[in-house]
Amino acid sequence: MGTINVSTGKKKRKKVKRFQIKKMTETTPNHTLTVEGWAALDPSGKITPFTFKRRENGVEDVTIKILYCGMCHTDIHYIKNEWGNTIYPLVPGHEITGVITEVGSSVRDLKVGDKVGVGCLAASCLTCDFCKDSEENYCEKMQLTYNGTFWDGSITYGGYSKLLVANKRFVVRVPEGLPLDAAAPLLCAGITVFSPMKKYNMLRAGKKLGVVGLGGLGHVAVKFGKALGLHVTVISTSRSKEEEATNRLGADHFLLSSDPSQMKSGARTLDYILDTVSASHSLGPILDLLKVRGTLVLLGAPDDPMELPSLPLLFGNRQVCGSLFGGMSETQEMMDLCGKHNITCDIELIKPDYINQALERLAMNDVRYRFVIDIAGQSMT
Amino acid sequence: MGTINVSTGKKKRKKVKRFQIKKMTETTPNHTLTVEGWAALDPSGKITPFTFKRRENGVEDVTIKILYCGMCHTDIHYIKNEWGNTIYPLVPGHEITGVITEVGSSVRDLKVGDKVGVGCLAASCLTCDFCKDSEENYCEKMQLTYNGTFWDGSITYGGYSKLLVANKRFVVRVPEGLPLDAAAPLLCAGITVFSPMKKYNMLRAGKKLGVVGLGGLGHVAVKFGKALGLHVTVISTSRSKEEEATNRLGADHFLLSSDPSQMKSGARTLDYILDTVSASHSLGPILDLLKVRGTLVLLGAPDDPMELPSLPLLFGNRQVCGSLFGGMSETQEMMDLCGKHNITCDIELIKPDYINQALERLAMNDVRYRFVIDIAGQSMT
Repeated sequence: MGTINVSTGKKKRKKVKRFQIKKMTETTPNHTLTVEGWAALDPSGKITPFTFKRRENGVEDVTIKILYCGMCHTDIHYIKNEWGNTIYPLVPGHEITGVITEVGSSVRDLKVGDKVGVGCLAASCLTCDFCKDSEENYCEKMQLTYNGTFWDGSITYGGYSKLLVANKRFVVRVPEGLPLDAAAPLLCAGITVFSPMKKYNMLRAGKKLGVVGLGGLGHVAVKFGKALGLHVTVISTSRSKEEEATNRLGADHFLLSSDPSQMKSGARTLDYILDTVSASHSLGPILDLLKVRGTLVLLGAPDDPMELPSLPLLFGNRQVCGSLFGGMSETQEMMDLCGKHNITCDIELIKPDYINQALERLAMNDVRYRFVIDIAGQSMT
Repeated sequence: MGTINVSTGKKKRKKVKRFQIKKMTETTPNHTLTVEGWAALDPSGKITPFTFKRRENGVEDVTIKILYCGMCHTDIHYIKNEWGNTIYPLVPGHEITGVITEVGSSVRDLKVGDKVGVGCLAASCLTCDFCKDSEENYCEKMQLTYNGTFWDGSITYGGYSKLLVANKRFVVRVPEGLPLDAAAPLLCAGITVFSPMKKYNMLRAGKKLGVVGLGGLGHVAVKFGKALGLHVTVISTSRSKEEEATNRLGADHFLLSSDPSQMKSGARTLDYILDTVSASHSLGPILDLLKVRGTLVLLGAPDDPMELPSLPLLFGNRQVCGSLFGGMSETQEMMDLCGKHNITCDIELIKPDYINQALERLAMNDVRYRFVIDIAGQSMT
């Protein structure tokens, strides 16, 4: 999320300073790789073909031929400069899978031909306590895969492109057997739900998990929950999601959040809840579903504050936490778990010339559950 | 808090049903002890002398001559029926100290003459997991010291009275050396701040604690923090509190929450924050003061929801928790700790005929920091 201040989580309004970009390009003379991609050039919301430069493969880098890239809702925020911090031209995309085509001389564990993934992270300080614990996502200096600033001062470009050069630390292996297209969204949606599930000790068979919102994140959360033997309840404002949740995804229970009697019937039944909704909403009715000592994890980033009534927290000794994707070692752990349990995302595969239509549909949540761009695919027309 | 639904924390509007009270009295024929006290008879906010009946001392009960009773802000809510669930006549008071005058035949650990305290709890189910762990405060059937319903069906009357009959489980010893007047508010204000300090592992020398609001709860939190070697920062909207916080109470640092530059200077510096403010406010600026993984505990119960922006939670992997006074064994632990470190509350001791003036001043926070009623004291006039 680029220049969001990771200390305070505040979004900074930032003017595009073209002279800075120019200067930066001049100071990164090793950016000689010509790459074809797709970029937003302004806040219109449109993506166009765009050719740009990436750095040459360094001694600790790997070069990846990108095969697939998932489309995350965050992409829309950046494309339209909704958070006021977009640096144009913007090449979005942080759910990347592909094949390694070159490795640097200091790279030991990866080789040409390996199937790999790159998620939200491009860089971090590597020396702070968080980096030491491979929780690079909470490093104060962490930089994102696009709209971030890499160590050499260059602005990062994401996965809506045919080639990526990535530092070896920020690359994970995709297990054999996982299809690279349906695995791509695991790099953001997957790790975003897995990280809090691990951290808050949710991965215990028989425990009761609630998932608020059945979209890109929510449907993966249901899959993780069921694969690990949890009892999963989906909570949604949309009655049409019940059939999908229980029949298609195997959730055990469904609560229509707009129906007070259904919500009341679920009071004090859940051990944990993952709230994946990106629109602002009151947390009171959701907290009421938790047992005493239950944990609610917020994963969405609505522009407006949530409403938090204090009584359900006080009387239930409950907690509301936030979580931001994940660190690199737990991302690998998540990928391996997906390989073991054959967990992938439900996707709609598109060609690059459908990106603009897909963005429009994504804005309306008209996708089950993730668009993935077939980067190497030919035009549909 | 009487008939607040402890499952959901919701306040129920409840009409006073006098016929029910009458019937209840008839079904509790052992309520033969005549007790003088002070009660609210209606929502006017006024307290008047009131004589009522308590149960005879049972085999597991102790009878306590009440010497002192602290005045908690919660008392005002009930006196004025601000939560809509007050049962009149209401005898408030849940910060009670006194001397045992009678013990039941099954009481082993307490004897006549012992100095004891009674806090917020009068009863609980005794069989659930919370009760088994002496976390009676989270028992679904817990009942409060006033405006609660005791096991025999009688409505409980609190400490604005000269005599109390209490089940032995809900009585704690007051250590020798602690003055009974200044110790009285520990039974609510003290345990309310101590319980989360213990639960969230805050009692570690050198750690950085923030205390939002310097009132009845806040000033005790500062004392606990300093006694246990923490670095304590007081955060307040009132500039006048700086002198008191740092000079009188020994806090290490002060932040004026209305001054953005001061708040910015404190960003990401605190390990934990206890928020004792009872008015609704935005949690964003407070969360920004926490380090990554920091914990904010809410102790106040404002009528309106708090504003919770999600980004400080997400980027900081922080948590917001709620806590409700404490269980009996940790209340005893807290009292013993106060005895060891000589921690008491700063109080203004009043006679019973000053209760109404004190309530008015309490409503305006015009007290440093707790009114305590000298129950056995003579009239001031």
